[in-house]
Amino acid sequence: MLAVKLVEDNSKPVGSARAAVDVRRANQCKTAPLDDHIAMEVPVAMVYNGISHAVMMATPADLKDFALGFSLSEGILTDTAQLFDCDVKSVAHGLSVEMRIANSCLAALKQRRRNLTGRTGCGLCGTESLESAIRPVRNVTAPVVSDDAVQRALKMFPQYQALQAKTGASHGVAWCDLAGNIVKVREDVGRHNALDKLIGALLQTHTDLNQGFVLVSSRASYEMVHKSCAVGIGALVAVSAPTSLAIEQAAAAGQLLIGFAREGRHVIYNNPWE
Amino acid sequence: MLAVKLVEDNSKPVGSARAAVDVRRANQCKTAPLDDHIAMEVPVAMVYNGISHAVMMATPADLKDFALGFSLSEGILTDTAQLFDCDVKSVAHGLSVEMRIANSCLAALKQRRRNLTGRTGCGLCGTESLESAIRPVRNVTAPVVSDDAVQRALKMFPQYQALQAKTGASHGVAWCDLAGNIVKVREDVGRHNALDKLIGALLQTHTDLNQGFVLVSSRASYEMVHKSCAVGIGALVAVSAPTSLAIEQAAAAGQLLIGFAREGRHVIYNNPWE
Repeated sequence: MLAVKLVEDNSKPVGSARAAVDVRRANQCKTAPLDDHIAMEVPVAMVYNGISHAVMMATPADLKDFALGFSLSEGILTDTAQLFDCDVKSVAHGLSVEMRIANSCLAALKQRRRNLTGRTGCGLCGTESLESAIRPVRNVTAPVVSDDAVQRALKMFPQYQALQAKTGASHGVAWCDLAGNIVKVREDVGRHNALDKLIGALLQTHTDLNQGFVLVSSRASYEMVHKSCAVGIGALVAVSAPTSLAIEQAAAAGQLLIGFAREGRHVIYNNPWE
Repeated sequence: MLAVKLVEDNSKPVGSARAAVDVRRANQCKTAPLDDHIAMEVPVAMVYNGISHAVMMATPADLKDFALGFSLSEGILTDTAQLFDCDVKSVAHGLSVEMRIANSCLAALKQRRRNLTGRTGCGLCGTESLESAIRPVRNVTAPVVSDDAVQRALKMFPQYQALQAKTGASHGVAWCDLAGNIVKVREDVGRHNALDKLIGALLQTHTDLNQGFVLVSSRASYEMVHKSCAVGIGALVAVSAPTSLAIEQAAAAGQLLIGFAREGRHVIYNNPWE
């Protein structure tokens, strides 16, 4: 899949490639090419019972988590037990994630196929009408998250983002307990993909999603709030800004939404407890 | 469209709302809510000759530029003259951009409807098969861009991003001449939308797209390279990292691709002149 200039790097963390690049610095003569680490972006098809449903541009790591999380956050599945099995195959134009799901879900999927939604950072999606673009958001129960827990998680977050440290090109999404300890992290070039990967990983291990919060290295858009509420995550903390629609959706769902979370300072955009 | 907590702000730059937020600082007692500026994210429907084609989550500013740029970068139109007129209407669930286009384009559009593509940062799109996910990229002619021009544009870039300065939540995309002067800028919560807005603005004024470069405040993904090549932009400079697929596509198209462009240092990922 990779062109001549790029060579896939199989060392940990997976999901990166190497390429020769020219680094230009001010007041310096041209230097020799440098061997750089690049985050991989690959077309990944989600295939349900033999039917290809959607293709995402994603980092090829933790794809089984991705498949489960995507299926749940998009409402294709309502329970992890509805996914019978999942295989990742390398095919001609990318990767194919082949899932076998309960027949009852497949019927619902055909209806959903015409109700896909466009998102910030995307620019073009399957939804054709405004009526189907904003789906009803699920109500969640927000935990009480202390300022100290937010700050503790933030401080630890960089050292848990191995792909980001290697490439500088990926988003990280972490599950944190209410003391602010980082329990699980997933990374991807797309923030929604990273969130779906984390959701898949959390629900496979039956994590109680009211007893912690999700920390994202990106902004909080409509989609991040919607996906996290869809599986019952009660608190979302974003390192960068939330959009207007993210705040409105969090308010509608009863989700605790924190943004601009940096060391020493964070901003509460929706607090259902006040 | 805005919920109780948010109030649309009509002062320049448009595209933001105001909300009361709680700022928490380390070692400080709880303070009074602050009046904050939030970047607006609104569902925007692209409607061609009465048919709703796609919905994007976008910032409601420069929507006519957006409509033209989107139509061209997605190959729905091949020439600005094929767009006869464009009206933006506020409707029940968002904004509707109603375009009247040449009948020949409408026929092609029906084919394209089944070939929409998923992108990084998106997570879910209309493309169902891997075969249609990676579209052929258009060949471009890269201009010679000096290191000084890149650095000059970078230095000026922040002061041209008014929505970002106000909200901290938007991406900026700038057209720069070969001396590194910033000529035009567009902003949006979505980087692809900001690029489409810029493309629309540039092609309305018949800018020669070989005589400058595009500077983006974000990463460079597959989609940013693909959209810019689709309209003939020969050089793309990203403040943050490129993905593997972006580098491969730039190499295939002959586009100059620069990433991690910061003051004093930038990295050349694809240089067709070497």
